[in-house]
Amino acid sequence: MTETLLCPRNLAFELYEVLDAEALIRRERFAEHNRETFDAAVDTARNIAQRYFAPHNRKADEHEPQYVDGEAVLIPEVKPAVDAFIEAGFHNAQRSFEDSGMQLPNLLSRACFAHFQSANIATSSYPMLTMGAAHLIETFGNDEQKQRFLQPMINGRFFGTMALTEPHAGSSLSDIRTRAEPAGDGTYRLKGNKIFISGGDHSLSENIVHMVLAKLPDAPPGVKGISLFIVPKFLVNADGSLGDRNDVILAGLFHKMGWRGTTSTALNFGDNGQCVGYLVGEPHKGLAYMFQMMNEARIGVGMGAIMLGYAGYLYSLNYARERPQGRLPDGKAPASAQVPIIEHTDVKRMLLMQKAYVEGAFDLGLYAARLTDDQQTADSEQERRNAGELLDLLTPIVKSWPSEFCLKANEQAIQILGGHGYTREYPVEQFYRDNRLNPIHEGTHGIQSLDLLGRKLMQNKGAGLQLLLELIHGCCQRAAEYDSLQPLRQSLEQHIEGLTRVTQALLGDLMAGKVNQALANSALYLKVFGHAVIGWRWLEQAIRAERGLAAGNPADADFYRGKLQAARYFLTWEVRSCHYELELLETRDDTCLQMSERWF
Amino acid sequence: MTETLLCPRNLAFELYEVLDAEALIRRERFAEHNRETFDAAVDTARNIAQRYFAPHNRKADEHEPQYVDGEAVLIPEVKPAVDAFIEAGFHNAQRSFEDSGMQLPNLLSRACFAHFQSANIATSSYPMLTMGAAHLIETFGNDEQKQRFLQPMINGRFFGTMALTEPHAGSSLSDIRTRAEPAGDGTYRLKGNKIFISGGDHSLSENIVHMVLAKLPDAPPGVKGISLFIVPKFLVNADGSLGDRNDVILAGLFHKMGWRGTTSTALNFGDNGQCVGYLVGEPHKGLAYMFQMMNEARIGVGMGAIMLGYAGYLYSLNYARERPQGRLPDGKAPASAQVPIIEHTDVKRMLLMQKAYVEGAFDLGLYAARLTDDQQTADSEQERRNAGELLDLLTPIVKSWPSEFCLKANEQAIQILGGHGYTREYPVEQFYRDNRLNPIHEGTHGIQSLDLLGRKLMQNKGAGLQLLLELIHGCCQRAAEYDSLQPLRQSLEQHIEGLTRVTQALLGDLMAGKVNQALANSALYLKVFGHAVIGWRWLEQAIRAERGLAAGNPADADFYRGKLQAARYFLTWEVRSCHYELELLETRDDTCLQMSERWF
Repeated sequence: MTETLLCPRNLAFELYEVLDAEALIRRERFAEHNRETFDAAVDTARNIAQRYFAPHNRKADEHEPQYVDGEAVLIPEVKPAVDAFIEAGFHNAQRSFEDSGMQLPNLLSRACFAHFQSANIATSSYPMLTMGAAHLIETFGNDEQKQRFLQPMINGRFFGTMALTEPHAGSSLSDIRTRAEPAGDGTYRLKGNKIFISGGDHSLSENIVHMVLAKLPDAPPGVKGISLFIVPKFLVNADGSLGDRNDVILAGLFHKMGWRGTTSTALNFGDNGQCVGYLVGEPHKGLAYMFQMMNEARIGVGMGAIMLGYAGYLYSLNYARERPQGRLPDGKAPASAQVPIIEHTDVKRMLLMQKAYVEGAFDLGLYAARLTDDQQTADSEQERRNAGELLDLLTPIVKSWPSEFCLKANEQAIQILGGHGYTREYPVEQFYRDNRLNPIHEGTHGIQSLDLLGRKLMQNKGAGLQLLLELIHGCCQRAAEYDSLQPLRQSLEQHIEGLTRVTQALLGDLMAGKVNQALANSALYLKVFGHAVIGWRWLEQAIRAERGLAAGNPADADFYRGKLQAARYFLTWEVRSCHYELELLETRDDTCLQMSERWF
Repeated sequence: MTETLLCPRNLAFELYEVLDAEALIRRERFAEHNRETFDAAVDTARNIAQRYFAPHNRKADEHEPQYVDGEAVLIPEVKPAVDAFIEAGFHNAQRSFEDSGMQLPNLLSRACFAHFQSANIATSSYPMLTMGAAHLIETFGNDEQKQRFLQPMINGRFFGTMALTEPHAGSSLSDIRTRAEPAGDGTYRLKGNKIFISGGDHSLSENIVHMVLAKLPDAPPGVKGISLFIVPKFLVNADGSLGDRNDVILAGLFHKMGWRGTTSTALNFGDNGQCVGYLVGEPHKGLAYMFQMMNEARIGVGMGAIMLGYAGYLYSLNYARERPQGRLPDGKAPASAQVPIIEHTDVKRMLLMQKAYVEGAFDLGLYAARLTDDQQTADSEQERRNAGELLDLLTPIVKSWPSEFCLKANEQAIQILGGHGYTREYPVEQFYRDNRLNPIHEGTHGIQSLDLLGRKLMQNKGAGLQLLLELIHGCCQRAAEYDSLQPLRQSLEQHIEGLTRVTQALLGDLMAGKVNQALANSALYLKVFGHAVIGWRWLEQAIRAERGLAAGNPADADFYRGKLQAARYFLTWEVRSCHYELELLETRDDTCLQMSERWF
C-alpha cells in the first residue's frame, strides 16, 4: 500500500515547531506527559490505523451496510478496528487518568485521531460520534444519566449518535416535529422520524445511545423550544444491565455517494408509542447543548476533510514520482526516455496546490485544537477566555474551508492519476467521494457562511475578530524580519486591509437593518475570510521554515524549502486572487440578490 | 421523473435566435430541410432519449458491465436503446440522403445527440464511438474497407471503437509499443496491449471495428511513426458475412468512478500471433488521421460535459422550487411557513452559477457545430477556411471548459440538494461522477492547455486568433447599442485587452525559445482564454435577449431577463475575477516552474 497516512515530519513540524506542544507539558494537567509520551501516543494511533483501519477502507466502500431483518449489518472488519481503537483508549484520550483516560491535550488527541480519519474516515466515524455524545452527557447530564449511559461509553460498551435531522427539517432545526410527552415518572415518550442519522444502527457495541432533539408539549416555536433527550436502543436497568429493546425502529438505510462504511439511517422513534427518553439538562435548552457537540463535530468534520485531502495528496505525489509519461517541452527528442510526471510544471502546479490546501488546513485544524487546550487549561482566565472567543470565530472556517479546498485537492489528485485516478482500482476517487459529504453535513457551507457573518463576527462586540486581527498583525511583524518573506507578508497585509474594510461595511449594513443585502454574498465572505486565515497560518509556517533553515540541519532543508514554496503559492496565487471577490463584497453586488425565481 | 433533458425554449433560442439555423436551409445541401424538419428531428431525439435512454441511466450505474467468459455483459436495457437510436437513423444524421442519411447540418445533429447524452451519457457513448470510427474509414479508408467495414456501420450492424492508450502510453502516444507486421498479403498482424478502450467489447452489434494505432517495423520514433489499422473483432468475408473471431482478447474491465454503463476494457491484440489488421491510408500517418476522430470526439466530450451539467442544473432548479426549508434573514418569525429554498440568495447564487456555466457552454458547443457546418458548406472558400481556423482554435476550449466548469456546476447541484444530493436515491451525484471523466479522456486538461498555447494559437500565423478577436470586437460593437449591456461589454473588452497583452508576451517567449517559461502556467492561460470565449458567447446571448425583450412577447420576458442576469453574472463575477490570473501570466510567475521535486 502506498503510504497515505499523514507525513510524520510535517506532524512533528506542527506539534513542536509551530504549535509548541511542549509548552503544554508545563501546565499542571499535562505535567506527567513529555514529548516521548506524546510521540508514543501518535505512534500507537498510526500503527492501529495502519493495521486495522486502512485495510478495509475500500472494502467498506464496496460493501456498504445492508438492511437485514430490521438491523444494519456491516462488514466484519469494522468491529476489530473499533475494538482496537477502544482497547488502546483513544476514545478517552482527553479524559483524566482517574476516569481511565490518557489525559492528553486536545492537540494530541486530534493529531492521533487524524490517523484514523486518514486511514478510514467511515470506520473512524463510529468512535467520533460516540466521543461527541459522551461529552454531551458528561457536560449536561445528571449523575444517574452519567452512571447509566456515560460510564458504559467510557468503557467502550455503548456507542452514541446525534439525531437531529428530520425529513422536512435539515438546515432549519427549528422546524423539527419530533415530540416528547412526559410519562409521569420523570421519563418521556418520544414520537417522530429522523433521517441521515450516522451510525444509527450496527452491532459494534452492546447498545447505542441516541442524543435526540425533540419538542416538549409546551415548547415555544423556533429554536428556543427544542429539548435534548437520551434515547437508548436498549433500555438500561438500574444495575447497568441491558433491558428491553426501546421503541426505536430502523426504518431504512440511505445509500450515499461515498463515506459508505458509515451507515446513514432513517430512525422511527415511538411508532408503537413506547419510545422511552430521558431529558438532558433543562427543558427547551437542547439546541444550545447540542451546539457543544456540533462545534466539536464541526472541527472533527474539518479534520476529516483535511485528512482525506492529505491522503489524496500523498498518494498522487507518490504516483507522480513513479509514473513516467512524456517529455519536457524543451526536450522532446522522441527516442529519449519518458520523464516522471512530477517533472511537468502543470503536475507540479497540481501538487503544489494540494500541498498548500492540505498542509495549510492541517495547520489550522491543529491550531484550533491548541485553542481548545488554551480554553481549558491556559494559565490565566484572560487567556482561556481569549482562546474561547477565537475558537468560536474560527469554527465555521475550520469546518468549511477544508470541506471546500481539501475536496478541491482530491479533484487534483484524481487528475494527476489520469485515467487510473478515475478507476476504483486506485484510491483517489474514493477520497473525493468520501470528502464530498463534508460541505453538507454538520451545517452546510451556506449555513457556515451565515454563522460567520451573521453571528460570530459580532459575538461579544467582535472580541474574536479583534483578537484574530492582532494575531495576524503580530505574525506580519515577525515575518518582516525575513527578506524572503516580504512579498508574502505584503500580500497578506493587503488582503487583511481589504477584508477589514469589507467587514466594517457589511457589519454596518447589518446594524442598519439591511440584513438581506449584508448576507446576500455571505459565501464570498466565507471564502475571503477563510483565505485570510489560511494565509496567516501559511505565513506562520513560513516563519518557522526560515528559522529551521537558519538552524541549518541539511537533512531538513528540502522540507523547509517546500514549506516556503507552498506559502508563496498560497499567498500569491490564492490570497491575491481574492481581490475581485473583495470588490464584489464591498460594492454590495446584488446580481444574485436581484435574480428572480421566475427568471430561471 | 423530474425533467432533466435540456430546456426546449433554450434550444430554440440557440438554434433560431443566436445561431440562425434557418440560414443553413438556404444552402444547397440542406435545401430540402426547413424549421419543421429540424424541429421534428429534435423532437424524435427527445422522445427516444426519454423512452429508451433515461430509464436505465441509474440501473446502468448500479450494474456495471460484467466480465463473463471473456466477454463484457451489459444490462439488457442498453441494446433496445441503441437499436431505437439506429432505427431512427441518428447515427447517420449528417450523411446524405443517398447514403441512408438525414442530411442534417452538424448543428442539428449535435442538438439531437445532446438529448441522448443528457439522458444517459454511458449508453450514448456506444453510437458516438461508432460514428467517429465510421467517419474515419469514410475519410481515409479505401473502397474495399468502406464496403466491408463502413457499410455495416452505416447499416447499424457493426459498432466501432478507438484504441489508442497503452499501459505506459496515455498522454504520450508517441510511446505506444503495439506493433504491426506485414503478413505479405496486404494485411498486417498486430501485437500489443491497449487499455481504457471504451466499448471495447459488448454484444450490442454483430461486430466491433477497432481503429487501432500501432507501429510498422520501419517506423521512425515519435508521433511520425504511428499508423492506423482497422482491427475487427470478427473477420469479415468478401461477401460481407462474418468469418472467424480475430485474435483480439478481452483481458479485463476497468471499474470506474462513474460513466459505468460504458464498458472500459483492456484488449490484447495478437496474444496468439493471429491478429489481422488492415492499414488505413498511408503508413506513419495514423496519428494525423486519428486527430480527425479525436477532434470530433473532443467536441463530443465537451457536449457530454455540458449535458451532464445541464441535467444537474435542471434537476436542482426544480428541487429548489419545491423544497421548503428555513426563512429569509429578514423574516425569521419561527411560526411562519418555511420558504422554498430558491428564495435564499445563496441558493440563487448556486443556480445562477450553474445557469451561467451550462448555458454559456451549451451556446459554445452548438456554435462549434455551426462552425463545422460553415467549414463544410459555407458559400465561399474564404468562409469555409475561416470556419475551419476558428474551429481548430476553439476545439481545446470546447473540450476543456465544460469539462471543468460544467463539472463544477454538478458540484453545486449536489450542494443544493444537501444530504439528499449526496445519496444515490437522487440523480445528481451520478451526474458528477459521470462528468468527472471529461477533464481526463480525449486529452487531459493539461494536454488541452498545451494544445492551445503551444500549437493552436500560432497555427497559420495566428489566423484563428485574429478571426476570434474580430468576432469578439464586432460583438462588443453591437452590444454598445444597448445601455443595459455597457458594464458587460466593458468587462469583456477589459479582459480581451489583458488577454491580448498576455498572449503576445507568451508567444514572444515561445518564439524566443523560452519554451518552459512560456508553457509553465498554460493551465491558467486555458482558463482565461476560455472565460474570454464564454464571456463573448454570453454577450452574444445578451444581445439576442435584449432584441427578444424589445420584440415584446410578454410570455418570453422572464426567459430573456434570466439570460440577461446570467450574462451579468458571468461577465462581472466570473470574467472580471480573472484579473489576477492575467497578472500571474503577464509577470511569468514561476512559483510552479521553480518548485523542485525534492521539496514536496
